[in-house]
Amino acid sequence: MPEPFIDRLIEAIRAKNSPICVGIDPMPDKFPAELRPGNLRDRDAVVAAIDAFGRGVIDAVADVAPIVKLQSAYFERLVWPGVQTYYELIRYAHSKGLLVIGDVKRGDIGATSEAYAAAHLEAMNFEDHPPADTPDAITVNPFLGFDTLKPFVDVCKAQQKGLFVLVRTSNPGSGDLQDLRTESGATLSELIADKVTGIATEAGLVGKFGYSSIGAVVGATQTHTIESLRKRLPKSVFLLPGYGTQGATAEMTRAAFDQNGLGAIVSASRSVLYPPREAGEPWQNAVRRAATAMRDQLRNVVG
Amino acid sequence: MPEPFIDRLIEAIRAKNSPICVGIDPMPDKFPAELRPGNLRDRDAVVAAIDAFGRGVIDAVADVAPIVKLQSAYFERLVWPGVQTYYELIRYAHSKGLLVIGDVKRGDIGATSEAYAAAHLEAMNFEDHPPADTPDAITVNPFLGFDTLKPFVDVCKAQQKGLFVLVRTSNPGSGDLQDLRTESGATLSELIADKVTGIATEAGLVGKFGYSSIGAVVGATQTHTIESLRKRLPKSVFLLPGYGTQGATAEMTRAAFDQNGLGAIVSASRSVLYPPREAGEPWQNAVRRAATAMRDQLRNVVG
Repeated sequence: MPEPFIDRLIEAIRAKNSPICVGIDPMPDKFPAELRPGNLRDRDAVVAAIDAFGRGVIDAVADVAPIVKLQSAYFERLVWPGVQTYYELIRYAHSKGLLVIGDVKRGDIGATSEAYAAAHLEAMNFEDHPPADTPDAITVNPFLGFDTLKPFVDVCKAQQKGLFVLVRTSNPGSGDLQDLRTESGATLSELIADKVTGIATEAGLVGKFGYSSIGAVVGATQTHTIESLRKRLPKSVFLLPGYGTQGATAEMTRAAFDQNGLGAIVSASRSVLYPPREAGEPWQNAVRRAATAMRDQLRNVVG
Repeated sequence: MPEPFIDRLIEAIRAKNSPICVGIDPMPDKFPAELRPGNLRDRDAVVAAIDAFGRGVIDAVADVAPIVKLQSAYFERLVWPGVQTYYELIRYAHSKGLLVIGDVKRGDIGATSEAYAAAHLEAMNFEDHPPADTPDAITVNPFLGFDTLKPFVDVCKAQQKGLFVLVRTSNPGSGDLQDLRTESGATLSELIADKVTGIATEAGLVGKFGYSSIGAVVGATQTHTIESLRKRLPKSVFLLPGYGTQGATAEMTRAAFDQNGLGAIVSASRSVLYPPREAGEPWQNAVRRAATAMRDQLRNVVG
């Protein structure tokens, strides 16, 4: 049995002195010219390009980032061969010593959440095929109610995996529902945060550093609420998307970190995957440079 | 270009005089003995059984139900071969004249929702493979905010597809968030309903019967709120899950229908897929009998 997800994550953050997560959102039309498929309607060529790009990104950031996040949607768009590539890239990232978040944002009624937890977190020990590596943690959507998180939490306990529950997302319209003030005076996000803390502190989920394997997604763009949510979620590591292309800076994430520089990982996708390149520069150098610059900016803020 | 989703749905409901949706949630351990895989860890055998079961259910209900709903989670659990079977069953259902809902409950920030909309609604016109049929409509989760629905709505307009937005789900904990009363006095579900009506009445979405291709998921188990939501969603067809195993009866769904017996489809999965069998009865007969009994109970209520 591996160590708890949260301990593996914190050890990797410390070993690399880097609180960043590289989001792998493969958008073939933005790929570097040498990988870009000539015909975006040639499925086999696009899948091969996504595979090559994903491996190249993993190689480029393996010693800069402790963890990568694969966005399922960009793989699902290539139907089943895309899903196969998703699982193969998880295995490849693991082989390079990286932890993996599956950004799947699943959530459904109990029996169905069990099936999703099996698909996305459980070890896939089929007897007629090699095991398919699943992510170390996934993102989940709590809208259906807290009973629907239980099957995911159960798998986390049994198999030392982790969750990042959506609490406050990074998109422009995230306040439509999440900032609504309820009768209790708390916003919807704050109510969810309190409930997530109840789950995060259940027996078997808090690791040796005092953090839980049940984390929270809090958009780095949502500076008005990061501090309030940090207080309500003392045991949860924040996964902060929205850095870079979506507009958040390192400074904006300061309130998510504790005095030891722990408690948060900041995620960027497009700004690291598709950075400007210098003339003649290999594409992986540019990716590595973007990830390193992001890491250094965060070190300055949380160090 | 096909007719709008909503017109195709209403015509099929009328032609079959049946407001039911059969949910295809393949749970291999519940399959009829003649299809049940001997070893649930033999992936190829399980995928083959799911395929055979799905086709058998489609054959059994093709003239009893206008529409079937495939629950993505049970296919994702078999990783990429499961996803392939999902798309193949959509094609098979279409070949039998059935409409298809993909129960995927996706929702993410804008750029990612575009990729999900492509994966789950758009025609997949790859040049190196036959097109993969996508569902006629999918379920979507609005938690991230209404900007995140726009990419799905855009595909619906361009390709005559439909959505069922989660407004009030059928599970026991659905009230945790969805029944919260907000400062305006409305519950979260009611607020979402009002916003969905704003989208459902946009140009190009309301069909010739006065209903919109943008529908709503409202749990049949949630009788305390069906009437209130019906008033707030005058243009949206309700997809009502929760019939049968989850506890809802035909009578409980009455308030979702209009005086013409339109405006709602009631969905059942386990009670239709895994019904009691008489001695020696072929399994598809039992499925057909369960679907027919459900249809008749609903005809009595809405007829």
